[in-house]
Amino acid sequence: MKQYNIPKRNKEIGKQVKQYIDTLTKPIGSLGRLEELAIELAEMKNENFPSVEQPGILVFAADHGVTAQGVSAYPQEVTEQMVHNFLTEGAAINVFSRQIGAKLEIIDIGVAVSLEHAKLINKKIRYGTADFFVEDAMSRDEAKAAIEVGYVQAKDMIQKGINCLILGEMGIGNTTSSSAIVSFLGDEEVDAVVGMGTGISSEQLQHKGNIIKQAIEKRNPNSEDPIDVLSKIGGLEIAGMAGAMIAAAENRTPILVDGFICTTAVLVAKELAPHVVDYIILAHKSSEPGHAIATSLLKKKPLIDLHLRLGEGTGAAIAYPIVQSATLMLKEMATFTSAGVSTKT
Amino acid sequence: MKQYNIPKRNKEIGKQVKQYIDTLTKPIGSLGRLEELAIELAEMKNENFPSVEQPGILVFAADHGVTAQGVSAYPQEVTEQMVHNFLTEGAAINVFSRQIGAKLEIIDIGVAVSLEHAKLINKKIRYGTADFFVEDAMSRDEAKAAIEVGYVQAKDMIQKGINCLILGEMGIGNTTSSSAIVSFLGDEEVDAVVGMGTGISSEQLQHKGNIIKQAIEKRNPNSEDPIDVLSKIGGLEIAGMAGAMIAAAENRTPILVDGFICTTAVLVAKELAPHVVDYIILAHKSSEPGHAIATSLLKKKPLIDLHLRLGEGTGAAIAYPIVQSATLMLKEMATFTSAGVSTKT
Repeated sequence: MKQYNIPKRNKEIGKQVKQYIDTLTKPIGSLGRLEELAIELAEMKNENFPSVEQPGILVFAADHGVTAQGVSAYPQEVTEQMVHNFLTEGAAINVFSRQIGAKLEIIDIGVAVSLEHAKLINKKIRYGTADFFVEDAMSRDEAKAAIEVGYVQAKDMIQKGINCLILGEMGIGNTTSSSAIVSFLGDEEVDAVVGMGTGISSEQLQHKGNIIKQAIEKRNPNSEDPIDVLSKIGGLEIAGMAGAMIAAAENRTPILVDGFICTTAVLVAKELAPHVVDYIILAHKSSEPGHAIATSLLKKKPLIDLHLRLGEGTGAAIAYPIVQSATLMLKEMATFTSAGVSTKT
Repeated sequence: MKQYNIPKRNKEIGKQVKQYIDTLTKPIGSLGRLEELAIELAEMKNENFPSVEQPGILVFAADHGVTAQGVSAYPQEVTEQMVHNFLTEGAAINVFSRQIGAKLEIIDIGVAVSLEHAKLINKKIRYGTADFFVEDAMSRDEAKAAIEVGYVQAKDMIQKGINCLILGEMGIGNTTSSSAIVSFLGDEEVDAVVGMGTGISSEQLQHKGNIIKQAIEKRNPNSEDPIDVLSKIGGLEIAGMAGAMIAAAENRTPILVDGFICTTAVLVAKELAPHVVDYIILAHKSSEPGHAIATSLLKKKPLIDLHLRLGEGTGAAIAYPIVQSATLMLKEMATFTSAGVSTKT
């Protein structure tokens, strides 16, 4: 397995920043989670005044052969159509990306049809995964190549100057792959993990659960080997996001993680490089039941809970201003001394 | 009592907007709370594509005579010092106001000392309230005048072009007044309402509770008469915020409400003009226990929960981008038809 080199968070700077925050003109601890975020960001970036002023969003799109089993509310061609929507800037992620002034890149890492567009980054590994209900989703080499695509794209974006990485995805069928991975890696019952995805009925939900249970049994992945897990029940976009997370962590860049699919990619990335978790900020609590299981495995709590279940990175983009607020608090607030304000009696 | 004229929310436009949202390129309902917000804003503003692009923040500052009873962690002079900090732009609300591009105005509605500053709006009703443990906090006329100050300032800001009103406050001792009001109006035990404010010890907390219990008994406000409640156990900034809310509601302007003190002002405003509640969006869940009681009385759920307890309008400013996201979703997203995306199977 490829060796990654993720630096440790600088706990010493964290202590300094905590002390500094307590000199700012507000009651101690009164900005709650924002104060914790500021400390975490300082530790990640190894800076007393970390900045996230230039966010970047990578959206990985790929198809899933398992849609042949009727697990999704939408037909497979919606992946391709939504990629087109991203490129013509009409999708939700385009709207929220503009709102926060992010750089946005769309990567075809495995859409089932050929796509051509000046703005599309074509890194297709294969034309969608195979149906993992009947065969492995992809080969080991394809899984590794998909991780590498994400790794290279994130590194490239960081070199271009982004200092907070938001990840998103598009892929009809990817809650099925994610549910399989979370159930398998988290050793949880499939029925506790599986959810309505983009909006299936309760009958379809039961069917989806059954397909996943049987697929895990038939594929029998090796829990010690994340490449094996990805190749047997994974998705190309999940592999890509895992690779992107590792590159960001190697470059001390905070990673703002969207919902269920993206958090599943964290679980995979963690198997590849455990310290990646130190650079993860969970943006929002997804409505998918598997998401709560994935977040508890990571022992992390999302910033917001707005009942989102869209994907594309939208929840992370919506939560981004909160992360920005934490850095601005640190950088711009006056201290009790500088403002001449009395401290506690 | 002065008559106010608050228009009803346009439920018909709400229905239209709901239908329109279901044509946008995303699974139905997948933007959760954002979709509800968009519908509410459309109903408030009587517009299919409501905008909140120009937020305005009014911060009302006043002192509380009850601080003489030792109920606060900070000395009374901190109110005045923090007003100075607002005016020299070093406080948390200045930072978050700049972040969201808000117009910010600071109003002295009752600070205990004379203040002079080019940027300060001087509308002082009196030099702090009287100590309501020993006498009424203010006269009926003063309570009415404080409401009118808020009403006029909000109306003025709306006329200047702001289309989303954020309210905040500064006043050492104001969690004591708010706890008294919430306990009294909500018919709740004082001990369930009272909290640590800016950071008192558990002994001080018990003392604070006892002072409030005795004060309510001694003052014996009339629950049918909000002016009586304000004059007996209120605060000038609470009255001002209540007036500002009513003016905003009369002008169909959404009101983004900060934490405990501000939500207390909603309870008072509701007694003065029940329909004001239709224009209220609760921004964040405060750490003060009384806040949860106040929000449940309003049957509303705050947008975010980041363990904030600072005041000044900071929680509302931090939550504002979420409200903005809701309006941008509506205005900028493509529809299934316009983007050529297939609908559900």
